[in-house]
Amino acid sequence: MTDAFSFRVRHTDDLARSGLITTAHGTVPTPAFMPVGTRASVKAVTPDEVRDSGASILLGNTYHLMLRPGEELIRGAGGLAEFMGWRGPTLTDSGGFQVFSLGERVKLTDDGVVFSSHIDGQRVNLTPARAIEIQGALGSDIAMILDECPHGTASREEVERAVDRTTLWARQQVALIRPAHQALFGIVQGGIHEDLRLAHLQTLAELDFDGLALGGLSVGEPIEQMYRILRAVAPQMPAERPRYLMGVGTPDDLLTAIGQGIDMFDCVMPTRNARNGQAFVHGGRINIKQARYIDDPLPLEPGCSCPCCRQFDRRYLRHLFTVGEMLVSRLLTLHNLHHYGSLMAGAKEAIAEQRFAEFARRWSQPLVTP
Amino acid sequence: MTDAFSFRVRHTDDLARSGLITTAHGTVPTPAFMPVGTRASVKAVTPDEVRDSGASILLGNTYHLMLRPGEELIRGAGGLAEFMGWRGPTLTDSGGFQVFSLGERVKLTDDGVVFSSHIDGQRVNLTPARAIEIQGALGSDIAMILDECPHGTASREEVERAVDRTTLWARQQVALIRPAHQALFGIVQGGIHEDLRLAHLQTLAELDFDGLALGGLSVGEPIEQMYRILRAVAPQMPAERPRYLMGVGTPDDLLTAIGQGIDMFDCVMPTRNARNGQAFVHGGRINIKQARYIDDPLPLEPGCSCPCCRQFDRRYLRHLFTVGEMLVSRLLTLHNLHHYGSLMAGAKEAIAEQRFAEFARRWSQPLVTP
Repeated sequence: MTDAFSFRVRHTDDLARSGLITTAHGTVPTPAFMPVGTRASVKAVTPDEVRDSGASILLGNTYHLMLRPGEELIRGAGGLAEFMGWRGPTLTDSGGFQVFSLGERVKLTDDGVVFSSHIDGQRVNLTPARAIEIQGALGSDIAMILDECPHGTASREEVERAVDRTTLWARQQVALIRPAHQALFGIVQGGIHEDLRLAHLQTLAELDFDGLALGGLSVGEPIEQMYRILRAVAPQMPAERPRYLMGVGTPDDLLTAIGQGIDMFDCVMPTRNARNGQAFVHGGRINIKQARYIDDPLPLEPGCSCPCCRQFDRRYLRHLFTVGEMLVSRLLTLHNLHHYGSLMAGAKEAIAEQRFAEFARRWSQPLVTP
Repeated sequence: MTDAFSFRVRHTDDLARSGLITTAHGTVPTPAFMPVGTRASVKAVTPDEVRDSGASILLGNTYHLMLRPGEELIRGAGGLAEFMGWRGPTLTDSGGFQVFSLGERVKLTDDGVVFSSHIDGQRVNLTPARAIEIQGALGSDIAMILDECPHGTASREEVERAVDRTTLWARQQVALIRPAHQALFGIVQGGIHEDLRLAHLQTLAELDFDGLALGGLSVGEPIEQMYRILRAVAPQMPAERPRYLMGVGTPDDLLTAIGQGIDMFDCVMPTRNARNGQAFVHGGRINIKQARYIDDPLPLEPGCSCPCCRQFDRRYLRHLFTVGEMLVSRLLTLHNLHHYGSLMAGAKEAIAEQRFAEFARRWSQPLVTP
């Protein structure tokens, strides 16, 4: 563990909690949503806009950054945050999840994973030690261990092997030297098997991690299975360390997980869906492509205070999308990040005031408009 | 002419002049550069960002807007400015220039031009009256006449025919009813032939236009020919009305034209070149793709106060360009619009202080950096 990193729970409301993560680059109120800045850019928006949406920490993808521009260039620029003009904390994944998604170009052993770059086909070796080394160069405030994340439809045997390998790697990685300011989180696997999950959690909880994450959820399993695992595992995670649910999810998923005591999230949904024309609103989603919006003078979500809704209406946004103007990606991204940021800010406040269950119920209702 | 539109020259410095255009939607200090918002969006940036770059008037393209979303939808939204969230004056072209660029899909007669839409192949008829009608629906502050603009390599006979047809259409269009607030500008043709230019200018100057434009320059003719025509024609344009050089150009072109008494410009260069990775700087251009910037910690242009240069460096911009992140289009667009906006603001000030020639000389020198 590093002294530069700390976490304090401030309020609890049933299983839900709010708190504060402190890092060398700033603080993160929890529950926190981390927008995904895959290649050192949250697509279509500036760091200042990300900040204004309510986010206080960004996620960067080690796999992409190690290939371009390369971790040494980022180290020379002063680390990921400095490189991309983000004045705040960052978290990096280990690269494993995206390497595994390369499918046939991947060879996995206990030593690590060998893969062909999607850019130039070059063979790259990603070992547990290398994942830590690269993240050290990236200089993130929170590094994640290299783990093995099986698909949601994997057999119990496959999941067991992934758990064992993740444990092996976790023990190796927790012992490695990191930059003095950098925290390291372990990742609990175990698929949809409660007993595997709880056993793996217990194993990792005994190691010297600054926080623990749930990996291998929202990877193809039915949503009820994810919710069942969340209910069984999240409340058992060590209370004094941050709990991070990786790669999840919809606003309903986040509310469910916060209700089970999760503190941190990341997901490409608000940004990726925006670029496909989909906006999150209370009570549902809007697809701006639809003909019904062709002459609609309302903002995306009446009552919303985001920069998109304050200035632009649906007919204009639909026009931009129809003709392929890139401005629409930015405007919908701003709206969606604001939706997620507001959810986190509202949840935090509601937990402090012991009304989180009520808050979660109302979030999914359409806004009452004046 | 319309009462809602007026122009006043405030200062002159040799042939250069600065002044103020007043429209129903606001004022435009001149010399003025109009960013191009082809499809009701200045590509990659918001109206507020355009404003912050120093622009006070935008150009919209009738050809694109009549096809999508259609002029009646824009009329219903309150006009082009209201539709796109731009709080200021707008100018619309007639659609002709872009129709002619469709090449073989175009049939031109004295009645107008018939063409196939580039979107769905539908046949569309654009007559002089229709060009005025559409621009009336778009509600721009300044409408342009439909003219015939031959290529820069056209024969003298072709240019003569285009001049005659433009005169025929000009007489028809100046007599048509327009929205009460909308000004109408005539367009002087004549290619690189001084005598044709001056004769056409004299013909159009006698008609009741609120301003006059030079069309058919920067359309393929050698640059010295354009400068020669500018020197011969611009100072002869009526002094009490705005003079608009259409579709031009580089910073050097603008400085040359201002020096000959031109007041208004539009060009896609700052926005289009930005999307191709090219930034305008004092003393030249930067192509951010180049390998020399791979680890360059300087801003695009040291000393520049634009939002891109204030926060981001060349190595980050090059990375964004290399991996294809759309944020780079926006950041370079902001820089280039700021460069053009600063040129106009600086020229205006220099003219007021009788030092325009010196200003123009220094603009093209590299900035002295601290």
